Amino acid sequence: MSTIHELGLLLSCDKVICSKDKRWSRLSQKVKLSTAKNHTGNIWLSELNVGDSTFDSSIAQAVYGAGAKLDWHVHPGGQVLLITEGTGYYQEKGKPIQIVHKGDVIKCPPGVEHWHGAGPNSSFAYIAVTPTQKGKTVWLKPVTDEEYNGVK
Amino acid sequence: MSTIHELGLLLSCDKVICSKDKRWSRLSQKVKLSTAKNHTGNIWLSELNVGDSTFDSSIAQAVYGAGAKLDWHVHPGGQVLLITEGTGYYQEKGKPIQIVHKGDVIKCPPGVEHWHGAGPNSSFAYIAVTPTQKGKTVWLKPVTDEEYNGVK
Repeated sequence: MSTIHELGLLLSCDKVICSKDKRWSRLSQKVKLSTAKNHTGNIWLSELNVGDSTFDSSIAQAVYGAGAKLDWHVHPGGQVLLITEGTGYYQEKGKPIQIVHKGDVIKCPPGVEHWHGAGPNSSFAYIAVTPTQKGKTVWLKPVTDEEYNGVK
Repeated sequence: MSTIHELGLLLSCDKVICSKDKRWSRLSQKVKLSTAKNHTGNIWLSELNVGDSTFDSSIAQAVYGAGAKLDWHVHPGGQVLLITEGTGYYQEKGKPIQIVHKGDVIKCPPGVEHWHGAGPNSSFAYIAVTPTQKGKTVWLKPVTDEEYNGVK
């Protein structure tokens, strides 16, 4: 069974175990195709935890179609990505593209301009843990074809 | 392929992508069998991120053998568990045991005494996101057989 299928299973439940206190929730039944303007290509998102003053970090699952990529952006509080599927690209401003694979852990420091996305011929998925109390993600310019194809 | 195998794949890489700045690391090649005295049964741990003053949360993967369980404990900063495999138990003090499954997200509030573990006939695995700056986990009494078998 491929990991895409595993992710499918992970995302196949929507029953709320304990709705009274809302501290328990199943992953959403269907991934939600992002309509945000901060990326190119198809990216499906599933919010697993909303960051707040009690528990700082938002936790989300993202699944990319081949070639999909986020625009350049900055996380004021940094971000950790746990790659759960496929092959992708990660690049910090002024550095070469890093090719990342399932099983990699990416720790992106606060304030560092970067982008990430799927490889041209691979799906790509991760769980993102993002502190929220230091500010929202700042979105910058789209990644150009020249930048995306600059992998060595 | 079962998720145990998927986890095996996830844990099969140990190559460091960018060792110069130590911000990148692969998941460890082998899960580490816990020798801590805060649980019964076999629990394998893999540290994915160490919490610090820049990025508050520790992130770890835990894989339980059938019937393995942590002692009662408290997280001063709370914890979110993303169940990635199997069936387990989660109980907060004074409340009934909740049966949890792959795909569930558990948000344990700060200061709440609780325990979690595998079901008696199932493996169990999760990714734990635990804020660290409000203090270390406080370990309490072992879960008794009566408590473990009190599931309804």
